[in-house]
Amino acid sequence: MTSTTSTTDLRRTVERFWAATESRDWTAFAETLAEDVVYELPQTRERIRGRERYVEFNREYPGDWHARVERIVAEPGRAGDSEQSGRPGQVVSWTHVTMGQEEMHAISFFTGDADGRIAAVTDFWPEPYEPPAGRVHLVERY
Amino acid sequence: MTSTTSTTDLRRTVERFWAATESRDWTAFAETLAEDVVYELPQTRERIRGRERYVEFNREYPGDWHARVERIVAEPGRAGDSEQSGRPGQVVSWTHVTMGQEEMHAISFFTGDADGRIAAVTDFWPEPYEPPAGRVHLVERY
Repeated sequence: MTSTTSTTDLRRTVERFWAATESRDWTAFAETLAEDVVYELPQTRERIRGRERYVEFNREYPGDWHARVERIVAEPGRAGDSEQSGRPGQVVSWTHVTMGQEEMHAISFFTGDADGRIAAVTDFWPEPYEPPAGRVHLVERY
Repeated sequence: MTSTTSTTDLRRTVERFWAATESRDWTAFAETLAEDVVYELPQTRERIRGRERYVEFNREYPGDWHARVERIVAEPGRAGDSEQSGRPGQVVSWTHVTMGQEEMHAISFFTGDADGRIAAVTDFWPEPYEPPAGRVHLVERY
């Protein structure tokens, strides 16, 4: 697999992942995932192992949430000495998520497997906070 | 500029950005930045415009903080019809930051300019939170 192929694949897989999530198409969603996918949330130190549980986690997620992709950054995989040792690509997505009135950002790090499916997802959910004092001379608000 | 060159450049620039930050080498840090760099923090809706103020913001940042790069994801730029219209690459870094006893993750989205310098940085600082109820049947803790 050439590096160009593997990037394109994982970027497209991540685009399908978000489209399937937004349309609650759990069959299409499951098809983007490796069977032994690992999902991690460093903020809560939670981990989910396996496609079945990870699909269930998303399917059961409460609330009327909607996700819009803001940015995708995709890195080509690197071909190794043989096809077997090629390193799959990495993708990061920044999504804007609404849950009723609430608005959030989600940052997701994706690692692919050799078939262009998602082998690992690590999610961050940063929340709004008040700006610390002492830097008003440098910043503007938006 | 070929797409390979521009990725490599911005990835290296971001590596130098973090090395200079960690060593408080504000001259080397400034050299990684475009003069009109824009820094944004979506969580506080703060924005800093210009290299001078952004260097100052980092130089003045209080506390004995240390940053270790966990992961870098770098996307090649795309060559346009001419050298002038080539799109510079994008890089995301995930860093582990300590401030005394406190440990944090920082996610930074970088956009480059045509010279391989940093034209925009958008930072997220996700904090730990308690896992919501109702999903213990799917998750393990780590």
